[in-house]
Amino acid sequence: MNTDAFRAFLETEAFPLEAAFLSQPFRTLLPTLRALRDEVKRRGLWAPHLPRAHGGMGLSLVEFAHVSAVLGESPLGHYLFNCNAPDIGNQELLLAHGSAAQRDRWFVPLARGEIRSCFAMTEPASAGSNPVWLETRATRVGDAYELTGHKWFTSSADGAAFAIVMAVTDPAAAPHRRASQIIVPMDSPGLTFVRNIPVMGDVGSDYASHAELRFDRVCVPVDHRIGEEGQGFALAQERLGPGRIHHCMRWLGISERAFRLMVQRAATRDLAPGERLGRQQAVQHGIAECRAELDAARLLVLDVAARIARDGAHEARDGISLIKFHVAGVLQRVLDRAIQVHGALGMTDDTPLAYWYRHERGARIYDGPDEVHKSAVARRILEAAGMPKAAR
Amino acid sequence: MNTDAFRAFLETEAFPLEAAFLSQPFRTLLPTLRALRDEVKRRGLWAPHLPRAHGGMGLSLVEFAHVSAVLGESPLGHYLFNCNAPDIGNQELLLAHGSAAQRDRWFVPLARGEIRSCFAMTEPASAGSNPVWLETRATRVGDAYELTGHKWFTSSADGAAFAIVMAVTDPAAAPHRRASQIIVPMDSPGLTFVRNIPVMGDVGSDYASHAELRFDRVCVPVDHRIGEEGQGFALAQERLGPGRIHHCMRWLGISERAFRLMVQRAATRDLAPGERLGRQQAVQHGIAECRAELDAARLLVLDVAARIARDGAHEARDGISLIKFHVAGVLQRVLDRAIQVHGALGMTDDTPLAYWYRHERGARIYDGPDEVHKSAVARRILEAAGMPKAAR
Amino acid sequence: MNTDAFRAFLETEAFPLEAAFLSQPFRTLLPTLRALRDEVKRRGLWAPHLPRAHGGMGLSLVEFAHVSAVLGESPLGHYLFNCNAPDIGNQELLLAHGSAAQRDRWFVPLARGEIRSCFAMTEPASAGSNPVWLETRATRVGDAYELTGHKWFTSSADGAAFAIVMAVTDPAAAPHRRASQIIVPMDSPGLTFVRNIPVMGDVGSDYASHAELRFDRVCVPVDHRIGEEGQGFALAQERLGPGRIHHCMRWLGISERAFRLMVQRAATRDLAPGERLGRQQAVQHGIAECRAELDAARLLVLDVAARIARDGAHEARDGISLIKFHVAGVLQRVLDRAIQVHGALGMTDDTPLAYWYRHERGARIYDGPDEVHKSAVARRILEAAGMPKAAR
Amino acid sequence: MNTDAFRAFLETEAFPLEAAFLSQPFRTLLPTLRALRDEVKRRGLWAPHLPRAHGGMGLSLVEFAHVSAVLGESPLGHYLFNCNAPDIGNQELLLAHGSAAQRDRWFVPLARGEIRSCFAMTEPASAGSNPVWLETRATRVGDAYELTGHKWFTSSADGAAFAIVMAVTDPAAAPHRRASQIIVPMDSPGLTFVRNIPVMGDVGSDYASHAELRFDRVCVPVDHRIGEEGQGFALAQERLGPGRIHHCMRWLGISERAFRLMVQRAATRDLAPGERLGRQQAVQHGIAECRAELDAARLLVLDVAARIARDGAHEARDGISLIKFHVAGVLQRVLDRAIQVHGALGMTDDTPLAYWYRHERGARIYDGPDEVHKSAVARRILEAAGMPKAAR
Repeated sequence: MNTDAFRAFLETEAFPLEAAFLSQPFRTLLPTLRALRDEVKRRGLWAPHLPRAHGGMGLSLVEFAHVSAVLGESPLGHYLFNCNAPDIGNQELLLAHGSAAQRDRWFVPLARGEIRSCFAMTEPASAGSNPVWLETRATRVGDAYELTGHKWFTSSADGAAFAIVMAVTDPAAAPHRRASQIIVPMDSPGLTFVRNIPVMGDVGSDYASHAELRFDRVCVPVDHRIGEEGQGFALAQERLGPGRIHHCMRWLGISERAFRLMVQRAATRDLAPGERLGRQQAVQHGIAECRAELDAARLLVLDVAARIARDGAHEARDGISLIKFHVAGVLQRVLDRAIQVHGALGMTDDTPLAYWYRHERGARIYDGPDEVHKSAVARRILEAAGMPKAAR
Repeated sequence: MNTDAFRAFLETEAFPLEAAFLSQPFRTLLPTLRALRDEVKRRGLWAPHLPRAHGGMGLSLVEFAHVSAVLGESPLGHYLFNCNAPDIGNQELLLAHGSAAQRDRWFVPLARGEIRSCFAMTEPASAGSNPVWLETRATRVGDAYELTGHKWFTSSADGAAFAIVMAVTDPAAAPHRRASQIIVPMDSPGLTFVRNIPVMGDVGSDYASHAELRFDRVCVPVDHRIGEEGQGFALAQERLGPGRIHHCMRWLGISERAFRLMVQRAATRDLAPGERLGRQQAVQHGIAECRAELDAARLLVLDVAARIARDGAHEARDGISLIKFHVAGVLQRVLDRAIQVHGALGMTDDTPLAYWYRHERGARIYDGPDEVHKSAVARRILEAAGMPKAAR
Repeated sequence: MNTDAFRAFLETEAFPLEAAFLSQPFRTLLPTLRALRDEVKRRGLWAPHLPRAHGGMGLSLVEFAHVSAVLGESPLGHYLFNCNAPDIGNQELLLAHGSAAQRDRWFVPLARGEIRSCFAMTEPASAGSNPVWLETRATRVGDAYELTGHKWFTSSADGAAFAIVMAVTDPAAAPHRRASQIIVPMDSPGLTFVRNIPVMGDVGSDYASHAELRFDRVCVPVDHRIGEEGQGFALAQERLGPGRIHHCMRWLGISERAFRLMVQRAATRDLAPGERLGRQQAVQHGIAECRAELDAARLLVLDVAARIARDGAHEARDGISLIKFHVAGVLQRVLDRAIQVHGALGMTDDTPLAYWYRHERGARIYDGPDEVHKSAVARRILEAAGMPKAAR
Repeated sequence: MNTDAFRAFLETEAFPLEAAFLSQPFRTLLPTLRALRDEVKRRGLWAPHLPRAHGGMGLSLVEFAHVSAVLGESPLGHYLFNCNAPDIGNQELLLAHGSAAQRDRWFVPLARGEIRSCFAMTEPASAGSNPVWLETRATRVGDAYELTGHKWFTSSADGAAFAIVMAVTDPAAAPHRRASQIIVPMDSPGLTFVRNIPVMGDVGSDYASHAELRFDRVCVPVDHRIGEEGQGFALAQERLGPGRIHHCMRWLGISERAFRLMVQRAATRDLAPGERLGRQQAVQHGIAECRAELDAARLLVLDVAARIARDGAHEARDGISLIKFHVAGVLQRVLDRAIQVHGALGMTDDTPLAYWYRHERGARIYDGPDEVHKSAVARRILEAAGMPKAAR
């Protein structure tokens, strides 16, 4: 997969914009970003993951994985190419499971970058690590659902046109059959945008934000439900396979950029006149260890992507769990090392390292914390080796 | 050392103020903080490290170490009791080495909390890990020094009345005899306050800030020099001994607070109805490992404090190096674990964990990065075992 | 606590004997060891932990802790001074809880070093990490107990005069009241010495061995029971407090020796003509990190010892758990580093490092694996913070 | 690459022999091993790495990598298939660079498994991590070389028919041109077999041993030199590329076996009646982390193997360095975890874990310690980023 065109765009257009991104509210960058997105379209690089029929490049999962690692090198990368979370997941979901009407109304403008969207799943009262434990209810009232509940960490809700909301439609069903995914326009009566949550000192804005939302008897027509009633978790699981690849390759992109910044700093900074930082053995060993971890992790993610493409997400589920925690760990170690090599400069916002250090701490938490994925994959391995299944 | 009075003050006055501290510019808190500082004075807890003759409590280094660990539990702790860096270091320096005139003019209002101060040492062009490599020059011109140079990470310069500036007074001297420490009023002509440096996304203000300063032929009388010419590094070293104890005990205070938050969260949060987070073995093991590391580290710092008190900072220099990197590592591990146990909440500013996680990343960098301290202490151990001294 | 006399003995008598210890069956060293033990007695250093009335030095727990760290520096140290496990634990147990007859018959010759003993608790069929799960039964038959069961990892059984056997005397009792400790002479009919278990490639002999034993209706008089029936676990717990201090200080002694060997190697070995190994930053950092960990761990163990002495083992039980896994971890890291610094030499038996590396891997397993201690202490912390007690 | 035939042979023939391997001198197994090697030949699996013309299977480097991972699962695997170090390296070397006479006399019987060989490079007086620092001299005397020097860690010298000796032939040449590789029959006058070095408590014998050798004016004809004079290091480097793949895949085989043993133990062992060890979260997390590390490491080694095959060892040299230290680290962590999960059983020789734990500690030392490889690869990365080359 040749990614030169993406890399070239990043280097000339995205990297120079990072200083502004790191010092200004995201909202103030919108005009500039809009112009750049138009340029992306002109170059034929728009929405690389979407089929050509929908304005994309039609890349396969593995091809897009390579692209995603490149785009990850800038905090603006995925956004500029309209393949940023959570929109990419919502696009994939609507394309696969949306009704014709849903696709026309929501998918088409989303694919064109005319609107943004969000995905409301996590709740403050229930552990995010336990996705089947939801308190938000969507009660059927005639031809409508009436949603009531409390969500947070709804990323990018600020400025979004609609949310896909995970809500319990049948509390009496088996845990994994209780919930459905329902499209809720953000301007629906009863939907309160409480706040953008201050995350790592940053309240954020627009796309770069994480909202707290309240739903108080919000009504939407029943045809706003995606797929069947009770299919909420099945769809969420399906979303996770490719979504995990996207995230992990983005993290590897971040890691590669951090690695390069670290190497450049070490290769050019003097500790004393004529004594290059990169001559320090501790710095060298950090570089070598990061290089090995990065190379190995990249091969692992690409291998899992190929398995998903070949056998489906269900068959590849162990790999999907493994890369989640493994790559998040690599990311954190590389960022930590890169900051240490930069010294005081690493603490500043003169590089994107400090931004990633604090915001990507979440990588080990969101989409299921490390602990959940480790236990899940291990239990499957152990049960395959004869351990009796537990009640739990 | 009974620290109950300090703890009580923190719990009723400082902890409730943290939400504001985490969400507003420090400057906006000043009136409230001033009132609380007055209350501290009324309770007789002001400046616990200073002699009674100077309005303090006259605690010994070891006694104050215990207090410092308590105060560290809030990001506002040391400030409220006027024992915050860099003022505490400047107070100790002026008390020990300031002339009578310097003490009258600078120390007295500093001890009373009427003014603040800063310490300008680190330079962007020279590695902060190499304190003898300075480019700022103080040239003798008649009865004055003319200072020219560029400093950054001058903490708390915003709003300070004066800076103590490390500058080269004799470039031809041996490396450790080149520099002197000179008091420079912040309103001196030629001193430009360039900016507060954005650190971890936070430009800060007033006490909670790190400035970039430029000195362009700034003139101060020769009697603004502290101690002898060429004594700059010797004084800096002397400052470091007790200063290290202060920092390390503050870090342990932070760690204790983080530990307590982690335990409370785990003891009360459910992962599923009736399934307490603290029943997870991974959480338990993290708690146990943190407890052991914390207890051991605290004993180590107190032991070094006792050695400084008994034998002086020079004799205790190995311990002073050891605690710097060791406790900074403990701090980072405890904060990381505490955030993980909090899940998404740990990423928010609803607890102080995220603040410490990002800002105390600097603990492994400032005052000499881990790498420098490790090498320094190891070289002494190795040379004591017969390794020939290197030229370097 | 002045430990010079112990150190001097080790350096002149024990260290020179290590080459033989590392290359020959322990049994072949017995005559030499006997002569050295006599010399220890002559110097008045015998059994430092025992009361003077019983031929010891009458040291307190904390004083003996200092001694134990010195003796730990040689694999022969504790044996030469008759304070080696498991004899020391059996001595302490008999002294505190043995009947007059038991003390006369077993304790006296043990204290004099005329016989050795062992402690048979762990069973191959039940997890050693779960001490209340025992299958060995001691059935009351008239005035005797009839013991039937299977034990392994009965250290030093080879050549021992008697075993103290943990056996279930009342299977219907509450788990912690089921077992009793019973003295069984090793020559009892029905007691089969199955084998010395090959541990890390070494089948061992005499004191330096771990046996598998079978008890097939072995009869001993009821008065061979120590303490009350059902008191087995209570006695085992009581034994653990001081026993843990002994072990941890011994591990710290090993670690200190390994540290010193590492430093000496690094200070004197050339990587290339004129380029000393100790100039490598990676070596320096390892040395510094080990020094910090060792100093902190030592203070922690001494602090727990002082708490046991002051408040009793029950009150100090958190600390007793913490030091177990914490110091075992320090030990393993120091040994690993020391071997790496020695290169190929570290793999050989020309130093004691390789011996400790393999045999002390058990430190994280015996007396309760790390996992058990971490969970135990964390549960107590969490329950003190309000977590409901679990059924388990 | 279908490896079923190899796996089947291991399971029925090699695994059952391990108990004997772990408890008896290797020498006593020779008759049994000879019969099994004949069976390997009969099944057409002999010397899978050698060309068919020489009695092998003609596998490519990547194909053999897959096989090597399977064979690594038993400590007897590679030996049984005649692809064990150091013979495999000597076979490859003679095949590529040996003269016709050398091939006839040494390679042919070696390929048939009729003789064994060794490779004498490391010296006790010079750091093994610095391969250009050698003291063994081969002085030209007429048509012969006269070798004088001292070697150790000459693996498998006990019972070998010949050694390939690295010796300085021109001390005045540039460091990397000083040495040559010379074939020395083990029965040459002047060659003293000093001892098999006790390694991790095990003096070993025959193939499973590491010898110390002295050469005192040992004479061999000049035509015993392999390749050109001064080519010693170039040939050693060439040997390292494929050799590294062999080692790393063998380590991964060991790791897989350890992983499987760990999983089986956890899946079947009870901690208490009905409470399976594998339900412990700490065990689960260890399993998950090992699985991720193993999968990633395997892909990395296979990728480097493919690069060697495609671009040659020189082009792939960074990867060759990376896998050395990275996989050695994975191996050590997996073994450590597997032992911990086995508890006391893991310390015994009832599984091969304890054997690997102690003997494969060497993986981080031999063929260049971790530190050397990390620095080497980092320097190349840094110099490619503009760091000036150092004198050293």
